[in-house]
Amino acid sequence: MKKVLAIDVGGTKLTYAVTDEKGNFLTEIKKTATPKNIDELKNLFKQIISEYDNKTDIVAFATAGAVNIDNTKVESSTPNMPDGYNKLDFSTLSKKPVFVENDANAAAWAEYKVGAAVNEPNNITITLGTGVGGGFIVNGILLRGKSGKAGEVGSMKINGRDRICTCHRKNCFESYASGTGLKKTAEEIAENDSIFKNSIYKTKKPEEITTYDIIDGLKKNDEYSKKVFNIWKQDLIIGLINITNIFDTETIVISGGMGEFIDTKELETAINNEIVVSPVKIKLAKAGNYSGMIGAAILACDKF
Amino acid sequence: MKKVLAIDVGGTKLTYAVTDEKGNFLTEIKKTATPKNIDELKNLFKQIISEYDNKTDIVAFATAGAVNIDNTKVESSTPNMPDGYNKLDFSTLSKKPVFVENDANAAAWAEYKVGAAVNEPNNITITLGTGVGGGFIVNGILLRGKSGKAGEVGSMKINGRDRICTCHRKNCFESYASGTGLKKTAEEIAENDSIFKNSIYKTKKPEEITTYDIIDGLKKNDEYSKKVFNIWKQDLIIGLINITNIFDTETIVISGGMGEFIDTKELETAINNEIVVSPVKIKLAKAGNYSGMIGAAILACDKF
Repeated sequence: MKKVLAIDVGGTKLTYAVTDEKGNFLTEIKKTATPKNIDELKNLFKQIISEYDNKTDIVAFATAGAVNIDNTKVESSTPNMPDGYNKLDFSTLSKKPVFVENDANAAAWAEYKVGAAVNEPNNITITLGTGVGGGFIVNGILLRGKSGKAGEVGSMKINGRDRICTCHRKNCFESYASGTGLKKTAEEIAENDSIFKNSIYKTKKPEEITTYDIIDGLKKNDEYSKKVFNIWKQDLIIGLINITNIFDTETIVISGGMGEFIDTKELETAINNEIVVSPVKIKLAKAGNYSGMIGAAILACDKF
Repeated sequence: MKKVLAIDVGGTKLTYAVTDEKGNFLTEIKKTATPKNIDELKNLFKQIISEYDNKTDIVAFATAGAVNIDNTKVESSTPNMPDGYNKLDFSTLSKKPVFVENDANAAAWAEYKVGAAVNEPNNITITLGTGVGGGFIVNGILLRGKSGKAGEVGSMKINGRDRICTCHRKNCFESYASGTGLKKTAEEIAENDSIFKNSIYKTKKPEEITTYDIIDGLKKNDEYSKKVFNIWKQDLIIGLINITNIFDTETIVISGGMGEFIDTKELETAINNEIVVSPVKIKLAKAGNYSGMIGAAILACDKF
């Protein structure tokens, strides 16, 4: 049985532990801050790898950013990572086999192998957080595309409200269906809809209303918050209809911070009423907060 | 070398011939009208199959409609086909192996195996005709989904102009990017934009303007026609951006009647300026009018 040093590299923190081939944790999970300088980051990687040198056969990274087709390098721009991160050849960090995969792809693989979509070779994991990410499993294979960058579902254009995304493009799914998107919808409705006048937030400036306010407003039966959340949900549903119609997928797994506010049954009914392919199941993620490490470890064992 | 009786079943006509394993035609291609009655259609199938009985090893159908995962039956509603078409079990038509695949999927497979996307294991064929169809090749495998219905890209919602599609849903890609969509855009602009007052078509009623008028108007430098065509092209580009971002595909092959009016280089530049994945190539289809038969024949030989 191979042992894997699994490392999840985020913009603010870095998490690591040893797992077996199935992603079961064999050591305590450790956390540390992600250094802001590429040389410090590289040194930290080497230090962690040497610490576990005697106990592991493979090193597996899950990281922000699009990963090249050989699983050795991050190729996209990664604004939250140190400058030079996308020049780092991960395979040089150890004499052992090193594997790197995008964190959303790794999380999707974990959901397929040990999470909410086990035994479903056609499934999609959508991450709803600050942004919107996606990992697509097709015929039991992770969809990576010609260059490893596939799955950029957050950039799908879904709507005509002409919203400008943080990427400066227009009408990206992410700009509507993310947590940030919910806040933006809250601002739009506060500015343009008289329903705001009777809201519990009416004394706030539209741009001050947060995602948390809307979620809290739902519990307090605030009509404005309900309207905002419903529009957000409709935008989310449009994106999920689109990918269901294209992939005829068995299950869409919802992960990320916004997932907990979703009624999966309600979403499932709305999507299945509108699609032209066979019905899809909507489930919440099960592999947990460390799904990136788990998925990367399992993928690495499949490769090496 | 296996020999295949390949039959393309459309709403109005039926085309058939014998091919080898690579889809090369070994006999003359014959055409006949598609009977409007299911029993007549079944009898015609049997008659054609018996005619070639001594010369072929496999029967392969390309057909309108979504095909089940076992490639034996059409499962979707097919309004242009006789009632009962989706109850027909194709495997009962002959003692030999019988294979049936959706015509857009078969055409995509032909483009991948012998057409415009040879040696490109990640490619997509989009058919722009009366409707919009799609066939998706991922890692060298035809994307079929959990039930065989994958690839319904025409039902992707792309826009907020609230156009009602022929399927009665709102904002389908097909309702904008098809030939029918171009006519609908022509009508919209004629009704709402003063540019129509100076058009060569100004004496026509908006609903009388045809797709052909717009194409002809381009050649005659009619500003109204140019505006209509540009909006149609922008809508098409949005859909192609979406699928490129999700699939990170190497090539999009454009087939169908509207393909001939497209400047592939212009489209390629517009798409590559907007996507977040690696650049995509846009090519016109090469496998020709009989790509459905060719693709079905090659797929059938792979299966049997």
